[in-house]
Order: sequence, then structure tokens, then C-alpha cells
Amino acid sequence: MSGFSARTDFPRTWNPLARALAERRDRGLPLLDLTETNPTRVGLPSPELALLAHPGALGYAPEPQGLLSAREAVAAYLASRGAHVSPAHLVLSASTSESYGWLFKLLCEPGDNVLVPAPSYPLFEYLTRLEGVETRTYRLPRAHGFGLDVEAVAAARDARTRAVLVVNPGNPTGHYLREGELDALGRLCAEVGLALISDEVFSDFAWDEEPGRVPTVAGRELPMLTFSLSGLSKVAGLPGFKLGWTHVGGPDALRDEALARLELVADTYLSVNTPVQLALPGLLSHAPRFQEALLTRVTENRRLLRQARPSDAHWDVVPAQGGWSSVLRIPLEPGEEATCLALLDEGVVVQPGYFYDFTRGAFLVLSLLPPPDVFTAALEPLVRVLATSG
Amino acid sequence: MSGFSARTDFPRTWNPLARALAERRDRGLPLLDLTETNPTRVGLPSPELALLAHPGALGYAPEPQGLLSAREAVAAYLASRGAHVSPAHLVLSASTSESYGWLFKLLCEPGDNVLVPAPSYPLFEYLTRLEGVETRTYRLPRAHGFGLDVEAVAAARDARTRAVLVVNPGNPTGHYLREGELDALGRLCAEVGLALISDEVFSDFAWDEEPGRVPTVAGRELPMLTFSLSGLSKVAGLPGFKLGWTHVGGPDALRDEALARLELVADTYLSVNTPVQLALPGLLSHAPRFQEALLTRVTENRRLLRQARPSDAHWDVVPAQGGWSSVLRIPLEPGEEATCLALLDEGVVVQPGYFYDFTRGAFLVLSLLPPPDVFTAALEPLVRVLATSG
Ligand SMILES: Cc1ncc(COP(=O)(O)O)c(C=O)c1O
Ligand SMILES: Cc1ncc(COP(=O)(O)O)c(C=O)c1O
Repeated sequence: MSGFSARTDFPRTWNPLARALAERRDRGLPLLDLTETNPTRVGLPSPELALLAHPGALGYAPEPQGLLSAREAVAAYLASRGAHVSPAHLVLSASTSESYGWLFKLLCEPGDNVLVPAPSYPLFEYLTRLEGVETRTYRLPRAHGFGLDVEAVAAARDARTRAVLVVNPGNPTGHYLREGELDALGRLCAEVGLALISDEVFSDFAWDEEPGRVPTVAGRELPMLTFSLSGLSKVAGLPGFKLGWTHVGGPDALRDEALARLELVADTYLSVNTPVQLALPGLLSHAPRFQEALLTRVTENRRLLRQARPSDAHWDVVPAQGGWSSVLRIPLEPGEEATCLALLDEGVVVQPGYFYDFTRGAFLVLSLLPPPDVFTAALEPLVRVLATSG
Repeated sequence: MSGFSARTDFPRTWNPLARALAERRDRGLPLLDLTETNPTRVGLPSPELALLAHPGALGYAPEPQGLLSAREAVAAYLASRGAHVSPAHLVLSASTSESYGWLFKLLCEPGDNVLVPAPSYPLFEYLTRLEGVETRTYRLPRAHGFGLDVEAVAAARDARTRAVLVVNPGNPTGHYLREGELDALGRLCAEVGLALISDEVFSDFAWDEEPGRVPTVAGRELPMLTFSLSGLSKVAGLPGFKLGWTHVGGPDALRDEALARLELVADTYLSVNTPVQLALPGLLSHAPRFQEALLTRVTENRRLLRQARPSDAHWDVVPAQGGWSSVLRIPLEPGEEATCLALLDEGVVVQPGYFYDFTRGAFLVLSLLPPPDVFTAALEPLVRVLATSG
């Protein structure tokens, strides 16, 4: 027997870039890492550790959807962003990743599919396959600033499609969903019976204000079943604490049935740790301090990046509205991998567009999280290497 | 559209017992709860809360299988129980329940099945269905003290069976796997290509010593792929901390392939919170203190139970060797539910055998965890109500 399932039969080969990076690390050579997106490693503010030592932290009085006090804290946080929701419509989980898994279980038979955007963060392939679910890709057109094209969504759908995933704002493309796009998406979903799964983990990180953006679908009157996902990982920069949430919305009967089923799923795993649930009100009070520091950091790094670009450069910073990254469009020759390898020779680590399923063009993805000294030091070799392309 | 999957289409009706209990709770009537298995609610020792405030607790340096320091602590704990394993063969998860989910994903295509014992804890039905996996039941014969009957296992298997689940010791039946049973199971599994999933969450809670028991399959030389599951929930009485572990063993090539795939699964979710991983060495040092107090509690309650039984009673305490519960065999008339309802009228809450899929006979399941005053107070009405049966 091979003895193992097809759904865990993922390729495990290393690409040349990962090999070159590991080699450089082994040799102890210095690195300017513009792929660092771990918010705990870049000198941003942390909450008080004492929050974890809540007097009830050793107890256990689980509620399947998460402790009411914790769900109330999430509802208050959402209200502060303009989304008024009931704690009864929230379900906590250990992470957004786990929330995805639960939603795929809820909506899909094995062999059903969900529509996922491209380019995007490459985690959906794993999360779906592990649930026996397939993905069908809809393209975010570059001409539209990598925003949503509802016709592309409709065209990607087939008879076994159960849901549309939207990453709002896109990672790494940083485009927010807009009111008109949501309207069109609502009509499509209601007409053909699709749920909307809206990943809003980066929603608090808008670089500017602009009317017509949809920061969250939570608390909206919409004609289809909606799931808005977020969590402490990005909202408070605490990925190690393992707490995410899903708001369930849409027509009452559908929403209530979804909640009743999710409650049973959540009850089967009960995966959110008690100390963090009890600390949640304090952790969410800390979030604005973290977010303000992070926004200062990313907007400053982005300003430095744009400023470093020579006016006659053959590359561009792709316009975007928020998030933790920037995308560069680079010449097709020598292309993504060769450029990444050349940068690595200079000690600068960036990601090639193909990690995120960019097509038609060559792209690099840079994290805007590194401390200013690291980011600035990386800009000179970046500009120099890119000057030799195209 | 119904819009929801068959795998989440669980019945959500209340049985008469649950309704009667809820009603009694609503009326504020006193209860002597012999279904309480929450170790944080029965006055047993807790660890120091300060363990959670490890200086690194706010950081995030995830390793898919779990932080090496945490896996080393699990290996040291297992070594103290006589099982010598490598931390490289351990995978942490948020709970045993999550470990089960990962193993079903690893071993099974949708539609495949695993063999589960009956009577047993009723969680496998949910955990399998949510992964698109089926269960086939093998009976633990009462004649054999509810121990493993390898012929029943072999007979339950079909062409799509991928694994055998063993709960060791059984919950609530308290029977340990024995060397001879493991030998026979090993031959069967190796011959037909089944993995063994051994749930050892109650393994530390033996009421006495006896040669020939298998406390864990971890660290054994066995001819089939093995997975031993346990976690903080029972080992240290900390279900709210959300940390479980799986030891992977068996023939090298199979084991290594299983580990490589589990690493990718674990990396997709990264579900164990950092503060608890960092606290794990301290939490496992505390475990013996908890276990000693718990063992004193359950052996004393069991002694009281046996002592309370009139010598001419029509009911029996089913022999067992460990765990947190006791099973009573009661007369077929008026049977499980009527007896539970009659006891509830007296303020005593116990579980009917059918919760655990007991067949051929009538049974009650009692938790041995309640404080002695509660347990003792419940014995008088228990004996009185049972005296009117049969
Ligand atoms: C768009 C997006 N969604 C979800 C996640 C996963 O978040 P979590 O840590 O809550 O699983 C990430 C992680 O980077 C992400 O980029
Ligand atoms: C036999 C058995 N296995 C597993 C579990 C679940 O443990 P966890 O809290 O680690 O998911 C239980 C819970 O009672 C159990 O009785």
C-alpha cells in the first residue's frame, strides 16, 4: 500500500530560489529580508504579557462558538470599524486557516469547488485540498488594479461551485472590494446560490481613505450567505495566540442554519485556547496601537520605495490601497526567478510573482514590514539590479 | 439550494434526558452531577498561571510539527512512562480531536473508512464524517471485559478500510490493550495494510499495576504504521490550554512519509498557541501532582461505589483497570433511559449506556471525578433507585 491519501500528496520539492536562500543562510551570509511578514519580528508594539494570566485562565467552560465575553469583544471591535453585528453570529476558531477549513466542510461535498482569486496568497490550494474540495481560479485583471471582475467570477463557476472567496484587500495586491463590485457579486451569488467568503484579515490596514470601499461584509444586508473572516494574527499582530473569528451573515434562514451547523463543527474541535479568549478584550484594546505603528511603518517604506525608483526605470510599483506588501512590475527579461537570484547575490530577499500566481507579466513581491534601516539598505541593491533588467 | 454539505448534516434534536436535565437546571433545582468529567471543575490541583507569561510568549517562530522545545518536553514525559521516542517523530496539534482530523485526512480518501470500537466515547462519528470518512464498528465483547477482540476487528474491515482505532484504556470501559492483543493486531494491520491509531489520553490513569498491559504504542517496534495520541487535556487536566500530540511510529519508510505529509498538514493550520508551547515543560512537570490527586479521587470514589452496592443487588460495577469513569450494568427493565430519568428526579445525573453505543444489556456511566461529598451524596439515591429495577 502507498497508504496515504491523494489530498495530502502535495509536491515537496524545493525550487531553486529556496535552495539558494537556504545555502546563503547556511553560510551565515547577511540578509536583507524583504519577505518578512511576521509582525512579531520587526519591532512593532506588543500587548502586556500579563493579559494571559487572567484569573480564569486555568478553567474550562467551553462554548462551541467561543466564550460569549470573547465574542462580545469581537463585536465591539467590529462596531468600532462601523460594522454592527450580534455576538450570536460570530464563531471563534484557532485561526483564519481553521475557519476556512470549517467553511469548506460546511458548504462542500468532496469534489465540489470554490472560486479563488489569482493572484493571491497561496494557501487556498492546501486548505481546499485537505477538505477534499477543489479550487477554480478567477483572475483579478491587472488593468483593473487587480480588483474584482465579477464577469470573471461568473465565468469561472461550474455546476459544483459552492462559494466565492474574496480577499479584501487582496494579498499582496492591496485592492479593496468596492460597493459596485459587492452589488454585482451579491446578484450573482443570490441568483446561482453561492456563498461569499470574505477574507478581511488586512482590512484595517488601508493606506488612505476613499469613499466606496467595502472594509467588511459583516453587518451588511446582503442577499447571499456571507462569511467574514479575520483574527488576532493580523488585527493585533499576534499570530502565535491563535484566535480567529468568522461573522456569519445573509438571509436569516440560511444564516441560522449555517450557524447551527458551524456550532456542531466548532463543538467537535473546541480549538481556541481559554487564556487567549479571556485576554481578548485587552488584546483588542491594544490593536489600535499596533495598527498605528504598522501603518506608519508600511506607508513610510512604501514612500521610500517609490522615491528610490528612477523616473526612467523599466519597473513600476503597482498601485494599491492597503495591506502589508508592495508589488513591483518588472521587465519580462530576465524575469522573476533570475531577478530574485540576482538580488539574493546582493543579500536581498524578495518573492517572485509566481508564488502568488501572477501571470502575464513579471512581478516581485516585497514586504513593507521590515524596519526602516533594513528596508532602506535593501533599496540601493534593488534599484541597481533592476536597472540591468529589460 | 439547501446550500450545506451532507457531512455537516448531523441530527440536532434533543433526547428526553437532555430535555429533562435542561428543565431541572432552569428551575434552579440542585443537582448531583455524576457526568462531570471536566477536570478543572472538581477541585484538583492546577499549575502556576505564571507559566503562561514566558518571556517569548508574544513572539512567533513557528515550527510545523511544534516548537522543538515543546516536542522535547513531550519526549521527556513519554520517557518517564518508559517510552523512548525522538522529538522528530512527534507532531503537536491543538487537541486530540484535531490530531484525529489530520490523521483521517492523511490516511483516507473521501469514502474510505476506519474501524472504531464500540462501546466508546461518541466523538468518532463526528470527527470522521467531517473529513468525508466513514466508520465501521467493531464490538468490544463484554465477556472479554470490553477488551479488544482482534477477530472482531478483522471481521469489521472491508476493502476501503485504512486504519483501526484503539482507545487505550477504553473510555468509559477502562480496559487496557494487552501485549497479546497488540501482537495479533500488528499481524492483522501489517498483513492487510492498516494503520493503528491509538488514543492514549487516559493511559496514565491506571488504578493498579499488572504485567502485560500496553500503556502506549509509542517507542515500540511494530510492523505497521502507528499513531499514539494524547495531550494536556487529560494528562495535565488542562483542556482549555489546547495542546495535543501524536507520536508517529512503524516501519521507517512509512513513518517518514507519514511525518513529511503531516508536517505539511500542520504547516497549513499552525494551530498550537505559542504561550502554551513555551509553558509545556512546566505544565508537564506539574502533571504528576494532578494525576496523583486524580487517581486518589477516582479510586476512592470507586471504592465508595462498590461498598455502597448491596450484596444482593441486581446491578454490578463492571470490572475495569483505569480511566475516569465507571460503568454499571443494570437490569434491562425499566432500562437505561427510565433509570436515568428516575435518578434525575432525585437530583442525580448519570449517563445512559446508549450514549457510548453499549448494546446487549443496559448500562449507566458514572464519572468518578466529582468531589467525595458530591459522589457520596449521590450514592444513596442511586442505590435506592436501582433497588427498584429488575
Ligand atoms: C489573506 C490571508 N488570509 C489568511 C491568512 C492566515 O491567517 P491565520 O494566521 O489567521 O490563519 C493569511 C496569512 O498570511 C493571509 O495572508
Ligand atoms: C478517548 C478520548 N479521546 C479524545 C478526547 C478528546 O481530547 P481533546 O480534548 O484532546 O480533544 C476525549 C475527550 O474526552 C476522549 O475521551
